[in-house]
Amino acid sequence: MSTPSSLESLIEALRCLPGIGPKSAQRMAYHLLQRDRKGAQRLADALQHALAAIRHCERCNTLTEAEICERCTSPKRDATLLCVVETPVDMNMMEQTHAYSGLYYVIMGRVSPLDGIGPRELQLERLLARACDGVVQEVILATNYTNEGEATAHYLSEMLKSRDIHVTRIARGVPVGGELEYVDAGTLAQAVRERRSLAE
Amino acid sequence: MSTPSSLESLIEALRCLPGIGPKSAQRMAYHLLQRDRKGAQRLADALQHALAAIRHCERCNTLTEAEICERCTSPKRDATLLCVVETPVDMNMMEQTHAYSGLYYVIMGRVSPLDGIGPRELQLERLLARACDGVVQEVILATNYTNEGEATAHYLSEMLKSRDIHVTRIARGVPVGGELEYVDAGTLAQAVRERRSLAE
Repeated sequence: MSTPSSLESLIEALRCLPGIGPKSAQRMAYHLLQRDRKGAQRLADALQHALAAIRHCERCNTLTEAEICERCTSPKRDATLLCVVETPVDMNMMEQTHAYSGLYYVIMGRVSPLDGIGPRELQLERLLARACDGVVQEVILATNYTNEGEATAHYLSEMLKSRDIHVTRIARGVPVGGELEYVDAGTLAQAVRERRSLAE
Repeated sequence: MSTPSSLESLIEALRCLPGIGPKSAQRMAYHLLQRDRKGAQRLADALQHALAAIRHCERCNTLTEAEICERCTSPKRDATLLCVVETPVDMNMMEQTHAYSGLYYVIMGRVSPLDGIGPRELQLERLLARACDGVVQEVILATNYTNEGEATAHYLSEMLKSRDIHVTRIARGVPVGGELEYVDAGTLAQAVRERRSLAE
């Protein structure tokens, strides 16, 4: 073998990145060492720094550098509303809508029995404790409308209802600007089933 | 903004990897911090270690941890043959054929005027010095049969011929196991033009 062992270790280490197989990892390693040693150094430093600095917010569980994140400490947010999302990216999407000004809880995942991820792995009792702080009046479930997101929402709603917490789920239906002709049948079927009265 | 700055720096740093855009970099950063902190630490260490340990072989220019790589110091290799390849991966491909037992020179790139990479950037004078050591009797050009690989081979052959060094180029033609019906016309045209006499 002529591949230096530290190069092999780097190729192996790059495979921890999601979606990167052996061929891509090899290409990345050679690229970094041949063409972008500065970038490689920056990446090593950024990883080190992020690992040291980033932790979970004690209230909403998102990634943050503070004990409690900026959003959770903001006096401008409506603390009676708690929106549950799967990931920090989903939280950012919600924020971009400007349609919500309450607080969040980030599960950091979803119930997924096939991957061995159940309620215990997700530490959902922390969410329960958060929702039962006496201030929260409504928990809005904004997990994905995938099978796993739905299973998570179902589990959470059962868990929260047993504590007499008002639980809602974000609506599903035809997307804004969507034409019926191009919407899939499943979405359309749900949109019919969950039709709302215009009198409300 | 609620994204911690060290997270933003990590996302930015991940974009130095080839083929990774902003969305993938974000997904990777969240994956590492949420699900694989050990992997992230291993990657940081592997980068650091590879940057410190890996350099270019003084004889063949490949990536190595020694001053002169294992292959260049091996007494089993035929030092009268020097095969020029674009990258260490190409060198590994050549080795896997078991059809070559000479030495190598790795250009670490190719002439590519559009990317501003000319003979000077590739330090091709180092290859010339290597080929003129008095032991090498034949230089085999094994750059790719792409436009850039061809341009590189052309430049090298002119450079080496002016020093009276015997230069050859790996053959091109119909692949082994290839059927004429499925070979592209360009390859077939070359295979006809470069037909060899069976008397030889």
